[in-house]
Amino acid sequence: MVVKVYGAAYASPKRVLVCLVEKEVDFETIPIDLFKGEHKHPEFLKLQPFGTVPLIQDGDYTLYESRAIIRYYAEKYKSQGTALLGKTIEERGLVEQWLEVEAHNFHPPLNNLVLHILFASALGFPSDPKVIQESEEKLGKVLDIYEERLSKSKYLAGDFFSLADLSHLPFTQYMVTLLGKEYLIKDRKHVSAWWNDISNRPSWKKVLEFGTPF
Amino acid sequence: MVVKVYGAAYASPKRVLVCLVEKEVDFETIPIDLFKGEHKHPEFLKLQPFGTVPLIQDGDYTLYESRAIIRYYAEKYKSQGTALLGKTIEERGLVEQWLEVEAHNFHPPLNNLVLHILFASALGFPSDPKVIQESEEKLGKVLDIYEERLSKSKYLAGDFFSLADLSHLPFTQYMVTLLGKEYLIKDRKHVSAWWNDISNRPSWKKVLEFGTPF
Repeated sequence: MVVKVYGAAYASPKRVLVCLVEKEVDFETIPIDLFKGEHKHPEFLKLQPFGTVPLIQDGDYTLYESRAIIRYYAEKYKSQGTALLGKTIEERGLVEQWLEVEAHNFHPPLNNLVLHILFASALGFPSDPKVIQESEEKLGKVLDIYEERLSKSKYLAGDFFSLADLSHLPFTQYMVTLLGKEYLIKDRKHVSAWWNDISNRPSWKKVLEFGTPF
Repeated sequence: MVVKVYGAAYASPKRVLVCLVEKEVDFETIPIDLFKGEHKHPEFLKLQPFGTVPLIQDGDYTLYESRAIIRYYAEKYKSQGTALLGKTIEERGLVEQWLEVEAHNFHPPLNNLVLHILFASALGFPSDPKVIQESEEKLGKVLDIYEERLSKSKYLAGDFFSLADLSHLPFTQYMVTLLGKEYLIKDRKHVSAWWNDISNRPSWKKVLEFGTPF
């Protein structure tokens, strides 16, 4: 049974793709064009009532929210492919902690930058320089804490690659390429080494082949 | 060994408290006064560099982010107290999905209401009526989707109480009491039955004894 992943061109669904590649799980991608509003079509809303991607279908099992889906596959295929949850309950706790940090501290300012620098004109709202400046400052402060953390362990949750690192890949990729904010990484020695490591994983290079939405 | 929970008077740490009560785990609470800036003291920042509550210490294990901590204890004491992760990997997947919905769809507009209605003057910023109105509308739309979901299953992730429901308790309590927005619940039959059920659990009644920060 091949897993169907909706919306592969976008960033959040790429969390799911890179997880599936790491776990050696076969999948196919179903395109969804957010700019044409396909995520608001009644047929899609039946599967994902909040109208966002990603969404997966695995036989008759349907799941949404990228960070829920990656936890599901990391657990389901625990002993297949790369272990992504640590080895002990305490390690998993730290994976969960840093997944939450990614979601609540790292992602919001970066998502603001993505929206206001990349998507504003396509989505028809004015790009706000104040939001851009404040978000960039906020993100810098978060990355200062990452720098301190990564001076003590190779990866965020410890000396093992995990979902916590993986979850940063898609939006950080935007940050260093399309947003032109590579300095946020390069100026921090340990963050830079970490990014260099995780973004060079074969799984991520493979996922980049699925392209961007523009 | 008794678990230490920092910041029990506030809403997010109450996710942890109610989880520990459900899991029959002993704990003690360490007060942190956010209005006095105690979460920004160097000693606290050593343990929680982002300067937020909750934080737990369990022997020499330290963990932060409420939704990470509740996952940790639900897993660590899997067969003690109430099962909070479902019985199968697929059920856990749905628990994760609705935990993410709580974090990314339900919480942000409700948190805006809490900040602008309850905390604005104490935190020294102006309460913005536009933010209040937009957040209330957004929350209403999210709860419409909950109404549909809860017409099909007793709890969010299925016919079993889980972390996904539990995670809604502290801020929904604010919503129906201090914010005066009980109508958002009462106007929706299935949401109302669900709230009535989960907020009457003995665990939650016990946690309410820890009070609010004002």
